[in-house]
Parts: sequence; C-alpha cells; structure tokens
Amino acid sequence: MKEKNLEHDDLVQELVDGHRRLHELPESLPPDVAATVRRRAVARMTGANFETVGQYSLDAARASQRHCENFIGATQIPLGVTGPLKIRGRWVQEDEVLYVPMATTEGALVASVNRGCRAIRDAGGAVTRAEDVGITRAPAFRTSGMEETQRFLDWVRSSEEEIRRVCEATSGHLKLTDIKPQTFGSSVFLRFRFATGDAMGMNMATIACDRAVRDLIEPATGVQCVALSGNYCVDKKPSAVNFLEGRGKKIYAEVVLDGATLAKTLKTDARSLVEVQYRKNLMGSIAAGSMGYNAHFANVLAAVFTATGQDVAQVVEGAMGVTAIEPRGPDGVFASVYLPDVPLGVVGGGTALGPQKEALSMLGVAPHPDEPGAGALRFGEILGATVLAGELSLLAAFTSGDLAGAHERLGRGEIPR
Amino acid sequence: MKEKNLEHDDLVQELVDGHRRLHELPESLPPDVAATVRRRAVARMTGANFETVGQYSLDAARASQRHCENFIGATQIPLGVTGPLKIRGRWVQEDEVLYVPMATTEGALVASVNRGCRAIRDAGGAVTRAEDVGITRAPAFRTSGMEETQRFLDWVRSSEEEIRRVCEATSGHLKLTDIKPQTFGSSVFLRFRFATGDAMGMNMATIACDRAVRDLIEPATGVQCVALSGNYCVDKKPSAVNFLEGRGKKIYAEVVLDGATLAKTLKTDARSLVEVQYRKNLMGSIAAGSMGYNAHFANVLAAVFTATGQDVAQVVEGAMGVTAIEPRGPDGVFASVYLPDVPLGVVGGGTALGPQKEALSMLGVAPHPDEPGAGALRFGEILGATVLAGELSLLAAFTSGDLAGAHERLGRGEIPR
Amino acid sequence: MKEKNLEHDDLVQELVDGHRRLHELPESLPPDVAATVRRRAVARMTGANFETVGQYSLDAARASQRHCENFIGATQIPLGVTGPLKIRGRWVQEDEVLYVPMATTEGALVASVNRGCRAIRDAGGAVTRAEDVGITRAPAFRTSGMEETQRFLDWVRSSEEEIRRVCEATSGHLKLTDIKPQTFGSSVFLRFRFATGDAMGMNMATIACDRAVRDLIEPATGVQCVALSGNYCVDKKPSAVNFLEGRGKKIYAEVVLDGATLAKTLKTDARSLVEVQYRKNLMGSIAAGSMGYNAHFANVLAAVFTATGQDVAQVVEGAMGVTAIEPRGPDGVFASVYLPDVPLGVVGGGTALGPQKEALSMLGVAPHPDEPGAGALRFGEILGATVLAGELSLLAAFTSGDLAGAHERLGRGEIPR
Amino acid sequence: MKEKNLEHDDLVQELVDGHRRLHELPESLPPDVAATVRRRAVARMTGANFETVGQYSLDAARASQRHCENFIGATQIPLGVTGPLKIRGRWVQEDEVLYVPMATTEGALVASVNRGCRAIRDAGGAVTRAEDVGITRAPAFRTSGMEETQRFLDWVRSSEEEIRRVCEATSGHLKLTDIKPQTFGSSVFLRFRFATGDAMGMNMATIACDRAVRDLIEPATGVQCVALSGNYCVDKKPSAVNFLEGRGKKIYAEVVLDGATLAKTLKTDARSLVEVQYRKNLMGSIAAGSMGYNAHFANVLAAVFTATGQDVAQVVEGAMGVTAIEPRGPDGVFASVYLPDVPLGVVGGGTALGPQKEALSMLGVAPHPDEPGAGALRFGEILGATVLAGELSLLAAFTSGDLAGAHERLGRGEIPR
Repeated sequence: MKEKNLEHDDLVQELVDGHRRLHELPESLPPDVAATVRRRAVARMTGANFETVGQYSLDAARASQRHCENFIGATQIPLGVTGPLKIRGRWVQEDEVLYVPMATTEGALVASVNRGCRAIRDAGGAVTRAEDVGITRAPAFRTSGMEETQRFLDWVRSSEEEIRRVCEATSGHLKLTDIKPQTFGSSVFLRFRFATGDAMGMNMATIACDRAVRDLIEPATGVQCVALSGNYCVDKKPSAVNFLEGRGKKIYAEVVLDGATLAKTLKTDARSLVEVQYRKNLMGSIAAGSMGYNAHFANVLAAVFTATGQDVAQVVEGAMGVTAIEPRGPDGVFASVYLPDVPLGVVGGGTALGPQKEALSMLGVAPHPDEPGAGALRFGEILGATVLAGELSLLAAFTSGDLAGAHERLGRGEIPR
Repeated sequence: MKEKNLEHDDLVQELVDGHRRLHELPESLPPDVAATVRRRAVARMTGANFETVGQYSLDAARASQRHCENFIGATQIPLGVTGPLKIRGRWVQEDEVLYVPMATTEGALVASVNRGCRAIRDAGGAVTRAEDVGITRAPAFRTSGMEETQRFLDWVRSSEEEIRRVCEATSGHLKLTDIKPQTFGSSVFLRFRFATGDAMGMNMATIACDRAVRDLIEPATGVQCVALSGNYCVDKKPSAVNFLEGRGKKIYAEVVLDGATLAKTLKTDARSLVEVQYRKNLMGSIAAGSMGYNAHFANVLAAVFTATGQDVAQVVEGAMGVTAIEPRGPDGVFASVYLPDVPLGVVGGGTALGPQKEALSMLGVAPHPDEPGAGALRFGEILGATVLAGELSLLAAFTSGDLAGAHERLGRGEIPR
Repeated sequence: MKEKNLEHDDLVQELVDGHRRLHELPESLPPDVAATVRRRAVARMTGANFETVGQYSLDAARASQRHCENFIGATQIPLGVTGPLKIRGRWVQEDEVLYVPMATTEGALVASVNRGCRAIRDAGGAVTRAEDVGITRAPAFRTSGMEETQRFLDWVRSSEEEIRRVCEATSGHLKLTDIKPQTFGSSVFLRFRFATGDAMGMNMATIACDRAVRDLIEPATGVQCVALSGNYCVDKKPSAVNFLEGRGKKIYAEVVLDGATLAKTLKTDARSLVEVQYRKNLMGSIAAGSMGYNAHFANVLAAVFTATGQDVAQVVEGAMGVTAIEPRGPDGVFASVYLPDVPLGVVGGGTALGPQKEALSMLGVAPHPDEPGAGALRFGEILGATVLAGELSLLAAFTSGDLAGAHERLGRGEIPR
Repeated sequence: MKEKNLEHDDLVQELVDGHRRLHELPESLPPDVAATVRRRAVARMTGANFETVGQYSLDAARASQRHCENFIGATQIPLGVTGPLKIRGRWVQEDEVLYVPMATTEGALVASVNRGCRAIRDAGGAVTRAEDVGITRAPAFRTSGMEETQRFLDWVRSSEEEIRRVCEATSGHLKLTDIKPQTFGSSVFLRFRFATGDAMGMNMATIACDRAVRDLIEPATGVQCVALSGNYCVDKKPSAVNFLEGRGKKIYAEVVLDGATLAKTLKTDARSLVEVQYRKNLMGSIAAGSMGYNAHFANVLAAVFTATGQDVAQVVEGAMGVTAIEPRGPDGVFASVYLPDVPLGVVGGGTALGPQKEALSMLGVAPHPDEPGAGALRFGEILGATVLAGELSLLAAFTSGDLAGAHERLGRGEIPR
C-alpha cells in the first residue's frame, strides 16, 4: 500500500511538473486510482479542492474509457421526480403510473412541472405522439461547379441502393431512410437520414456516413468530401431545416382543460391563459426573432436529458418548437406543444451509466427486440407530456403574477439580497 | 432504528397508495431520509431500481430545499479536465496554469478539446475577452392601441430613474443598465437589462422586474402586465435579438496558428482548415438556416456548464455564434470564436452545490469584493478559449477524416455493431 | 362630342361630390374615357396634376378590366437594355445574341449590370440552370386536435389521386406535384405544389386549391379550411421554407473568370473580390441575420420583373439566395449565384400587356406547345446570368472603391448637395 | 431628315455589327433619337418588336441621363387609385380627402384595397404613425484581430464628432444619427444611421460613408475598408437587424372595427377574422419560418412604390412586419399593422420623373422647407393606412371563401382554363 502511494505521489509530481500529461498515466493503473492521481495533481496545480467530486458511485472504468477522458470523478446533479402523469399515447396506456426523473439545480422547476402534471391528470390525461423522423448527418462535398455537381447528384440518386448497403453494413440497428441534397456554388451537402431504433444514433450515423463517403462515394465519383459533418445536419445548433423538417423525434402533446381545472389546479382562467400565450409565446417570440414559440421547453428537456443520459447539448435543438393555447368550450382551453427536433435514445451514449440507467428504469422504456425503436418513441411520448405540463404551469404562473414569488420562496437564496 | 424504519415503511406505503403526495412528506424528516422514502416509493410504483442515485455526497438539505423538489438523490456525470490553457485576457494572465472541468458522457469530447488546448499553447496562447452585456428580462404589457402605448412609453422614458430605484432596491448586486422597448399592435415589451455582478442573475432580474411592474409601472400607468417574461428577453430559446445584441456575456477568443503547429498538433494545414470552415461553418449553416455558424460550441458549453453549476438550459443561447478561420501569413491561420449570448455566474444557482463549487475552484473565479463581476468575466474568458480549442480540434479532425475514427476508438461502444 | 363631354363633367362632379364612387362609372363608358373622368375627378379632389400619366400607349381596356381597377392611366418606368449575355444553359445556346430588358429609375444599375455582362462574355459565358420547383399554395385548416389531424392527414394521403383530379380539372396547364403537410396544435397546413408550365401560376394554383378544398376536402373530412392561403405557401414574404425548398424556379448561374478578365473588365483581382464576398456577402449577412447572402439580387430582379410583367412583389422572394466567389486557378475566381425562390412566367399576369410583352419578345421565351414550361425555364436561365452579372460588377466596384463614385457620376442628382 | 435617318441607319448597323456598343452612341444625339436607334438595333438583333415601349411621355433626357443607361423607352404599368382614406395621424388630418395611387398589373388588388379603405372610413378612420428611423449603411473593415479591433472601435467612439462633420459636409440634407458597431473575428461593421429629410437617402448615405471612410477613418486608423456596404446595412434583403431595429420609416397603423362594419363592408365577423389572423398570419408564418407575419404587405407596397417612384427593390424590406387582429368590444376587432423597415422618399430617385411626381402630387407630400422630413413622414402615414386596408380586405376575403372567386372574376384570364 505504502509503496503504491509513493508511486502515485511520483505520478502526481510528474503531472504537476509537466513531465507527464494527464492522459498519459500508465494503463495498468485502475481507473479510480488514475482519477485520484489526476485529482491530486490538478488540485495541486490550481488550488482546487475535490472532496465531493472524488466520491462517486458510478463505474469509473466505463466512465473513463467510454465517456470522459482525463476522468477525475463525478459531478452530481440533484435528482427529483415529477408525476404521476396520465397519458394516452401509442406507446403509453392511460392507466399506467408514470413518474418522470428530472436532474436540475434550478429551484421551483420540479414543483412547477408537478403542478402541470396534476392539471393534466385532472383533465383526464394528455394525448401524445412521437414520430421517428430519424437522425441526420450531412457531409459537405466540393465540386468544380454546376456540371460536376449535376453528375454527382445523378450518381447519388442512381446509387442509393448501393449507398444504403454500405451504410447498413456498419450496424444492424441502422437503416438509411433517405438522402436529401442541397447545393449551391461549388458546395454539395447530402443530408443522410437514418432510423436508428432505440438509440439516439448520432455516432452510428457518423460512422455509416464515413463508410459510405470513404469506401463508395469518393472513389466512385472523384468528388471530395470536405467535412463529414457539413452543418446541414444540423447537430446542436438552432436551425430552420430542423424546425421545418424535424430531426430525431417529432413530439406532439395536447390536453383540453375545463374552467374548473384551470381554476383549481392552475389558479387561472381560460381568458388569461390564452392572452399570456398570445403575447408571450407568439408576439414576444416574433418580436425577438426566435424559433422558440414556447415558454420553457429547454428547462424541462435539460432536466430530463441530464437525468436520463441524453446528450444535453441537444437541448439546443429541443428548445425550438411551438406551444398553442386556444379557447375551447365555454370556459376551457385546448393546450398543445410541438417539438420538431428532439434527438432521443434509451440505449447508447450516457444511458449506459448507472444513475442514468436507473432514471430510465422508472419509465419502462427498455428496448424490446420485437419492436425496435418503441422504447425511444415511448420515451418521446412521456417527454412530450412532461414538457406540456411545464408549459401549462409556467404560463399559468404568469397569469397569477406568481413567477417571481415562486422563485423567492423556493428558489436560489444564495445571493445575499 | 427499527421503529423509524417501520414508520418509513408506512410513509412509503402512503405514497404508493396515493394517500400522500411526494412533496407531502413530514418536514421533520431529514432530507436524506425523505429522499430514501421517495426513492423506495417510486421504485415500488414504477419498478425502477435506484442503487446508484441513492449514493451521493452532495448536501441533501441544500439540494432538496433550494435546487430540486421531490428530491430522491443525485445523477452523476463523469467529470474530466482539459488543459492547460494559455490565455491572454483581461482577467487571465499568460503565465497562469489553467485546467478546465468538463462533465460529459460523450466519449472523445474531452480528448478533442485537450488537443485544441495544446495547439493553442503551442501557438503562444489565445487572446480572449468577455464583455458584460447583462442579463435581460422583458415583461409584456397590453394597451388599448398606439395612443396608449405612446403615453406608456413616454412615461417609461421619463421614469427611468424611479424604475431603477425600485429595481435596485431588490438586491445590492443588481444594476439596471437600460430598458429597450419594442411594440406593435396592442403589445408592448420592455426589455430590462441588468448588470448582476458575479451572478448569472436571471432570478435577480425577474424579482427586480416583478417589483418594478407591480409596485410602480402598473399603478402609475394603468397598463397591465400580461406576462413578467414576454419572450423578448429571450431566455433559453434561440433568437435573433440575442444573437444581435448579446445577453449575459459576449465572448471573443482568437489565436494565430502557424503551419508547423497546424501540422504537428492538429495534423492539418491552413488550406484544408480554411476550406472546412468555409463549407461547413459558413455555407453549411447558411444552407441550414442556422444561427450557429460554428462546429460544436454547444458540446463544450454543455460540459463546462454541467461541471460548474451553470443553467444547462442556457446552452441553447450559447450555441449561437460564429467561428472564423482565415489564412494568415505564409502557411498559418487566424482562428476565432464569437459567442454573443452566454449567461454565466460564479455565485448563485447551481454554483453553490459541492461538486460544482469544487469544479469552479479550479478556475480562480471566486468573486472579489473589490471587483464585482470580475470572477464571471474571468470565467467567460476561460470559457471562450476552451470553446476555441474545441472548434480547432474538431474542424482539424474533419480535414484528416478522423471524426468517425475517433468515435469508434474512444466512443460509445454500447450499441452492438 | 360636346354633350358627351358635358355628360362627363357631370360624372366628374358626381365623383367629386361623392355621389358616385370611382368604380361606379357606367359600364358603357369606353375605358380610356372612364380613365379620363377618374383622373379629372381625382385631380380636382386632391390638387394633383396628371399630365403624363394620362398619356399612355397600353391597351386601356385590358389594363382596366384585367389588371387594375379604378384605372386612371399609366406609370412609366424608363426601360434600358443590357447585354449581350453569353450563356451556356439547357435552354439557351452559347452562340445566341441575348439582350435583357431592365426597367428602373436607379441610375447606374443598367450600366453596372452591363459591365458584368461584358466580364461574363470575356470569360466565355456563364453556365446557368433553372429548375422548375413549382408554385405553391398552402390552405390552413382547423381540427379539434391531434387525433382528428391524424385522420385528416391519413385521408389526404390516401386521396391524393382524387385531389389531383379535382385540381387539374381547373386548368389544362396545371399539374399537382405534391402535397406537403405541416401541423401543430389544432392547425394543419397543406402545401400544394403545382407545375404550371410557362405561367407563374399563383392564380391557377389558388383556384385549383379552392376547388379541391370546397368541393372535396371539406365535404369529405368535415375539417374546415380557415384560410385558402395559410402563409405556409409562402407568397411575397421572406421565409425559411422557400429558402430551403425553393418555389417557382430555382436558378443557378456560374462563371470562371481569370486574372486578366478580372483586371481588364472589372478593374479588380481575385484576392480582393474574394475578400469582399467573404466580409460582405457571408460575414455581413450573418451579422445581420439576413437570408440574402448576396450583394443586390433584388435590384436586378426588380428591374427585369418590372420590364417583363412579372409580379414585382415577388422580388421579396427572389432577394433570398447565396452568392459564392472562390479562388480558382492561379489568379482567377469561380463565381456563382443561387436563387432558390423566383416565381416566373412568360404568359399570364402582366406579361400580356403591350410593353411587357415587347420586353419579353427580346428574350425568345414565347411558350412552345411542344415543350410547356420551356419558355419560363429559358427566362430563368437568362435571369440567372443577369443576376450574376450584377453581382460581379457591384462586388468589383467595392474593391476599387467605386460605388459612391458611380452614384455621384451617373446617379440621382435631384437632391441639392 | 432623310440624311439624318440614313446616319441613324448607319448607327443601327454599327450596333448590330458589334462595332459600337449600346452606350457608345454619339453624345450629340438627342436622347429620344438615341433611344430609337437602340430600339431598332436591339429589335433587329433579337427579333423583338418595340411598338409600345417607344411611345412614352416621360422626359427622355432625364430618364436616360439619371435613371437608366442604354435607355430605349418606357415600360407602362396600369395606374389606379384607391380611397378615400380616413386617417388620424401626426401629419394627416382626419378630414382630409386622400386617394392613393397604385401601379399594378395584378387584377383585384386595387379593388381589394379599396374595400379596406371603405371599412376604415366606416370605422371612423385609422390611426397611423411613421417614425423616422433613418437610412443605414454599414461599411465592412478588416483588422488583424481583437486587439486592433478594440483600438479601432475606441477611435471611432471618440471621433464621432469628427466623423459627423465629414459626413454632413457631403449634403445639407443629411444628419448622422449614430454609428453602431458589430464585430467578430477580423471583421468590423459600422452601421451608420442617417436622417435624410424627405429623401429616401440611400445614395446620400453611401456618399457620406464613402467620404468618412476614405478621408478620415482609413487614414486615421490604418484599418482598411473592404466594402463600403458590408451587408449589415441591410439594403434590399430580408434581415433580422432591420426587423428588430427598423430602417427608413417604422410605420404603425390601426383601426377598431365594430361588428356592423365587419358585416356590412367586409362580409365577415370578428370571430372569423381573428381566426384567419391567428392561423395564417401567426401560425402559418411561424410554420414557414417567415419574417412576414402578414397577409400581403408586399402587394400594396409594390403598387404604391411603383406609382410614386420609390425603389421597388426595397419592397423586400417592407414585406417584413406584423399584422395583429384581436377581439375588441362585444363583436368588433382591433386591427393593426407594423412595418419596421420602409425606406421612403418624396424627393430624389424616381420621384423626379413625370408620372411618379404626378402620383405623389395626389398625396400632399411635397417637402416643406420649414419641416424637413415631414413630407416623407406624411407619406409613411398614408402608406400605413393603405397597407392596413389591404390586410383587412384580404383577410376578410378568406373568411368568406372569396379569394379564388375574386381572382376568377376580376383577374388574369390570359391562361386558357
């Protein structure tokens, strides 16, 4: 033990002295020991203190080898649950008991969504649908101009079967749906769209495109691929093409609330709620030139994504979308959310880590061999209803002037006032 | 001990039976015990298994009271470090040793940023600046039309000092910078902009607006505020107004790399890198109708935000921005990133939790009483250079056809191929 | 004659007195006389003087009955010609002599385009293509929510043949290409796309949609159409959907210019031209949040549209698009323009009026019965090359600091300086 | 006469043979004779027939020297009038008799606007305002990076008075309002904003910027201007910056209509009109990713612009904007239009030509020496009410299913059906 520690002191010192880099620790070092060595070195170099992040219960080997290089431990995010949610979807039955995990540091968020869930329950449940648009990847090519572009696109069109074969050989879980070209000047973008079952699929898609480009398209056409991702994909950036055509899952959720439910649970009424929707989500977003015609899709998505091992950077895409609230019946409303671009997976990526896997286990979304993709679609339906709950509750809070109050009561008191 | 457990069994049963809701546990119950009770109930109701999330080292009392209602434990995100970074900023000296914490589940990300940091070091360091644009909040008002709007705006303009007084009375850390109106039809939006020192400031801004609206603006003008946030703010949604005017911090970082550094560290050359930038970040983003003229700002921001207790939903805003890479000198490039909209704080929000505080402690960004806001600006400068490192490395990877390979080698192997 | 005049005096007086409205003149009145009566009445009521507009050579009967109610005469726009243009298209041969009519009041515009035409000639001609995307019209429908929407869309999908039949019965010149739905909340938009041969086709498309909606879709589904144009068309408004998917004609034109041509004709060099393109058309448009990544498509389109009887309000759509200029060869450039959304026709609309018909007669674009649509495609190809000429010349003017000078020398001297 | 004609035959032949270019006719040739020579040459070369365009009553000397090079005659556009309009503006009194000129080839447009004018009259008139935002021009500069940019912007900020002096020396009608910088990478844009009185001012602004850049900014800073217009202006392209900040005139118009007026004049009711507005102008435009939340601003602007000598390419800018229609009172509506970006002038440009000047003479917008700019503002107010009339009428037509019918009855019958 002692020698070992001494040896680690040496390693720490080598890191501090710059004689060894953080990713150059001996492979023989167990992952948690390597993490400790790095922590001690970084602490010494920067003055940091790593008491809490060094205490973790996730699998250090998996985390350090597959998820995070220069691994030093774990960040912890408070995890709460909201529900029960009542949903009528294709993959969720009305009588199921559903609780949704949310990992967040934003006080009042879980409570607010929870109130929305109650309103949805009181109203008899939300109707939700998730549509598998597919994950996309769009390599960028350079041609000499229009004439070579035309020949290139003709080749692509007539070779789609061959391209499909090459793509699909890279994974038994991936199907090429279509290839949509866009071109101007000497640039050509081919937007590959893939069905990737229960996985979010970005890496699968990248690997499939890579194979198709290197092994088939470039050799056959002589046209060079300049970037395997040509930003016409569009991953993790707001974009009109994803808003218009969707990416990952397109999610829809809606509910009809009568006046009594509005009054009792949401402390509001139809007229007020419709007006907040109108001035904030429509006119305000128009005034701002925003693609987010909603109150706070991103808050709910970020919390569920963090809890369930999704790629949180893709919340950027999920933040686009439209909430609609319209008068319905004598004193009620029709409320809906539309999220055209939500990449989601229940296997792969961060979903394999312990805490994330446990959060997903609440939702009954494990893949079924008989219905590939059904787990992710079910997840999408649940997510849609959760986002709807979040919209209802926050929008209602505005009508009763309760936003700031909620934050003052429940929120972040850290800043001396 | 035994009685206590029995008692908890009763509570668990009450939750399962729906006789008690998750947020209705006795206040006397210690937070970690309450979390356990909830975990057990949810596990029983949903079939979930909560082994790992129940093992946490963060402060359950703080987490459950200030950050996350219906608290059941903690999600863990693998934490890595990247660096050292060499920066010439206003708040960072060239000779400082800087390592940056990144919490992510996306294999290859930390390694990639790390390579970019090396390129920046080899090039003598990045120049960075962070500008405090201020956090914004824009209540929406309803008038009877143009004439009342005009009177209302006249009053606002002539009452700015009074409004400032009311706002600033809510916190010693908040200054009202300006109020920018936007109006059409019967809607008026007042975009309040605040300097909030070292805090990100969204909640402070909301509270200040609330006070100004309820105590002053509505009573004085008779014009009703329909929503305290009118989506012209714009929080957590992509928007032209934030892209154009900025929000939170505007961050700039740049570096000049010569041909030798490009070849040795980034395995690329000027011509190839410039072309990837051109076809992907410019033409590809144009083709997509995207406000993200960059490769993957969101990835880097999401990882650092998660590690340091920022509001990850605000990555939505940070994903907007522009990377530029231009030929410079005989065989080198000038590379830069511009992030107009990055809400950031080094106090408040999630920064007060243990792991997040520890991550921040690596960066030397603790607030100084003498220079309020300097910690957040320093953080912004570091973040800018980290984002630049991420862009350089990923863009270079495209030129060597190495994107898919990196993912295959380092990445997510969970999906059987 | 005298009585008649007296009678007209009476009519003028009745109009002035408000006893008769401008559109209530007796139908027996010859159109030019009615125009005179209206002119006299308006002149008397407003103090206007209508000397020039009363002198026109267009056909007053056609103008007043089909093009312009309350007809009082004609506006005259100076008409110039530019060329010759050398084009290699699908519908234009390299050896044709092409001159293009431009109606404009903006001094220096024709001269500038003319210089661009010369550069294109010197370079051996432009390659151009026009693709018939088709004209679109998108009625908006209201449903009770997702479930009715789903049934509605299922019906539409399975009834496409029947819908086609109804649409195509309204005109022998119209073919339904496809129907693309978009839906959220309780709204459904069906974007009908039509091929309309040599006509621009907006009215044909409206009539066909109307018939399909009233006679078939509403009765069969019980779903109500709220607006025959639901703004997802999108006519005469800038829009991402048209930028991404095109509308009317998609037009491409390109040319390779060597250093000698750049120097002699355009007084510039490759490096300077590429930099103007980069900072202005790319970075400047990005900074502005513009969908026009070009220098002045709108100027050229407006002038040719006005001359040839196109719908000038559709210049709004044509202004979107991308110019690209890249280094090519030792000292040359590759230059291209891409216009995704240019509604065009060589029959119908304003093309039937005398002066407009004469302008079109310069271009050899009269419809051929054997090749419906070929005239409009040829027109698109010519237009593309003309727009390219305009870009080259203006961008080159920036490099020699000649923009303001040109305006001072050739331009509008009306404002005393 | 005969010799002269012979001489002209020679000239025509020289043009046809390519021994002389169209702009190389002898300066001694009277403008109308030169036009004839060009017409004959072009007719011979292209097979065109120029009977009507050769008959014009505008001033050939002015047209050919100041407005249109290679002048061959005039295009004629049918001119109609609409009104009377009842307006309560700052520059228009309620009791004035206002008729508005519209030049268009689109049948049904004038009639439709006319119906809207009647509705506005019946409702007691529209309230309108025009705000002089100013015309903008934004040169693009290149620096070596952030540090030089910072010095450059510091210099600009501290030299604003000097820059103003240089700009304003170029014209007694131009005032520099402010300079707004935007910067990223090595690019800097300075958005100059000018008040230009009664002129639209684009050329004045260009000349003033040119002088400031060449004589002052470049010499003083050593920073090079790459393009005098850097597309951050933004002229004749749709753009977020103009939508958000305005350009030229910002125009507002509104009216309250009761149920009786809706029924009688517009054949509609409040509920239907509000729903069309909601699904078409809001949801439809959102679905399309459009910056035009309106029905057809562009149609009305194009017709009035053409009639009055405005720059029709700027309709591109005017097409952006927002229509709002909301329930008001028991059975009425509040209807408004907002046009943030309408460049307008009543002197300069095309306004000096005969027919255009005559059209303007209907409107009482001639400049007053005592109130520079008042004429253009009055024009803006009238234009706003006209656009509002157009919106009301078209939106109402949708509610009665009358759009296609109107086109069939009044419209373009040229295409055999």
